[in-house]
Amino acid sequence: MSVARIAVVAGDGIGTEVTAQARKVIEAVLPGTEFHDYDLGARFYNRTGEVLPPTVQDELAGHDAILLGAIGDPSVPPGVLERGLLLKLRFDFDQYVNLRPSKLWPGTTSPLAGIKPGEIDMVVVREGVEGLYVGAGGVLHKDTPAEIATEESLNTRHGVERVIRDAFGRAQRRERRHLTMVHKTNVLTKAGGLWARTFAAVAAEFPEVTTEYQHIDAASMFMVSNPQRYDVVVTDNLFGDILTDIAAAVTGGIGMAASGSVNPERKYPSTFEPVHGSAPDIAGQGIADPAAAILSGALLLEHLGHHDEARRVSEAVAAEVASRTAGTPLRTAEVGDRVAAAL
Amino acid sequence: MSVARIAVVAGDGIGTEVTAQARKVIEAVLPGTEFHDYDLGARFYNRTGEVLPPTVQDELAGHDAILLGAIGDPSVPPGVLERGLLLKLRFDFDQYVNLRPSKLWPGTTSPLAGIKPGEIDMVVVREGVEGLYVGAGGVLHKDTPAEIATEESLNTRHGVERVIRDAFGRAQRRERRHLTMVHKTNVLTKAGGLWARTFAAVAAEFPEVTTEYQHIDAASMFMVSNPQRYDVVVTDNLFGDILTDIAAAVTGGIGMAASGSVNPERKYPSTFEPVHGSAPDIAGQGIADPAAAILSGALLLEHLGHHDEARRVSEAVAAEVASRTAGTPLRTAEVGDRVAAAL
Ligand SMILES: CC(C)[C@H](C(=O)O)[C@@H](O)C(=O)O
Ligand SMILES: CC(C)[C@H](C(=O)O)[C@@H](O)C(=O)O
Repeated sequence: MSVARIAVVAGDGIGTEVTAQARKVIEAVLPGTEFHDYDLGARFYNRTGEVLPPTVQDELAGHDAILLGAIGDPSVPPGVLERGLLLKLRFDFDQYVNLRPSKLWPGTTSPLAGIKPGEIDMVVVREGVEGLYVGAGGVLHKDTPAEIATEESLNTRHGVERVIRDAFGRAQRRERRHLTMVHKTNVLTKAGGLWARTFAAVAAEFPEVTTEYQHIDAASMFMVSNPQRYDVVVTDNLFGDILTDIAAAVTGGIGMAASGSVNPERKYPSTFEPVHGSAPDIAGQGIADPAAAILSGALLLEHLGHHDEARRVSEAVAAEVASRTAGTPLRTAEVGDRVAAAL
Repeated sequence: MSVARIAVVAGDGIGTEVTAQARKVIEAVLPGTEFHDYDLGARFYNRTGEVLPPTVQDELAGHDAILLGAIGDPSVPPGVLERGLLLKLRFDFDQYVNLRPSKLWPGTTSPLAGIKPGEIDMVVVREGVEGLYVGAGGVLHKDTPAEIATEESLNTRHGVERVIRDAFGRAQRRERRHLTMVHKTNVLTKAGGLWARTFAAVAAEFPEVTTEYQHIDAASMFMVSNPQRYDVVVTDNLFGDILTDIAAAVTGGIGMAASGSVNPERKYPSTFEPVHGSAPDIAGQGIADPAAAILSGALLLEHLGHHDEARRVSEAVAAEVASRTAGTPLRTAEVGDRVAAAL
């Protein structure tokens, strides 16, 4: 029996290039891992007119995890692949914990003045399958002066409680044990009330975790003025989408930003992917930085219980990034080779 | 007849201190302005149990504009004053253009490395009376495991078109003539579709304005990595709430952040207020920076058609801020005196 069965959706543009490195590194640290390639994304869509055939989705469901590169290309109308593949996997595979660590690594530079590597180290736990992402709402009298359009944010105690409990668990296992809940309770009183009451209830189970609440606008500001203050952050789907991009920006962009769309119970496979996109402008040149993809591989290993391997991969990436010499052009495959060799 | 009738809602904490300076400056630049004080906010609420009595609201409606300081105090449950006063005025007075300029002024420092004063100069036009702020939605099975909570974003062609047209007009009158629309069309397809189609339609009326679209997550990242790229930004109510706080953060915090909740037709009074809050921690000490309040006064003058006076006030504030010497403690009244004297 194999140690892990991983579906690889390398996708488009630099997705294929960086995913090859993540795979190389996982092979090096966890020999015997089985990989199965799935050709999905813009190329597949343009060829077949399909985004995710049901048979392919069934096959994906039979894996322990999905390693995803990046999908998207200017040739595909915006939204088609995002909703038909990324969001569909999140919803159908109940990936309710969207995990996004942000760290200012040695060797990287924050756009913020005076912040040194090591000072920013947070993980945002973003709810993954509720809120405004459910697609509820409608359009009436389209393209007339009377048009209205609605979007509905749906939130359940079930869904809010499980992601908050997951975040508390993660905070509990970290050194600082601090959890910040972010919402907009002063305006979104219905959903905000549910989040606030649930947060207070679950907090009682974790007396060792200190807690804090911030409105999304204030949190967005503090993410710039004082990102050091965050340890674990839990928030809803849309706020998490925004906050994690600010967190990526203050830690030097999306070059090191890894993410996991996680079903913690492992009833369904979880998806791990770099936050960056397919970057058609630099695709095919072998110059994309695979660090975020490899770190996503580390999140995958961690999720599957290979804690030691996950830690070793993260450390090898950190060492590789720290050893980069300014001015030397980056070669995607070399980065993967160096990280794999260090293991 | 007076040149302008202004209702002053100085409010709580440092609100009273900074508003006194804004008023002083308006008096200096536009002699004959009538001011009427309204005691609203936490003190009023704690004394009377009321937030905005209908008779007071009627009186406010009879003014040309409202100069607001800051409201809020830990003694009042969160949300009560925000919804009962700030948001109520926005909605009842149809203040559909929420105007938030962000500039990196000489004498101020961005937390971003390598950005110099003058390089950031944008204005965010935030829709003020639609979207998720309307308060639609509900809670079912509260405090049980079956609880659900919904929030509904309501958007009309009427409401979206008028704020987009306003933003195009502002872009047209600026030097760079560039307008960025921010939404999340790839996920919020209903409201996003309405925004995108309306934006395209109105753009045809303004051939001299160059346009661009960004998703809110990407815009939040660019606001940190490259805020120089923005000229005018138009976006929905909630996205605008978030984006303007990031814009304030990258231009050195909320010390200089002015705002106006504007009814462009002047059918109802518009409200002008600094973005900062009542800051109970430093209230009463005379050390709050009144720059944002005075700049809000400049927005008020501009709105009432006193363009020359508005420009002179902005320039006087800019000169005062640029002349500050590091280390010298700031005195609220002195700043007001210096700006007023310069006029
Ligand atoms: C591509 C898009 C649908 C997606 C999201 O909004 O969640 C992306 O921004 C992300 O953060 O993973
Ligand atoms: C106080 C609050 C209701 C308000 C908002 O969300 O609009 C504030 O954050 C603002 O930006 O003016």
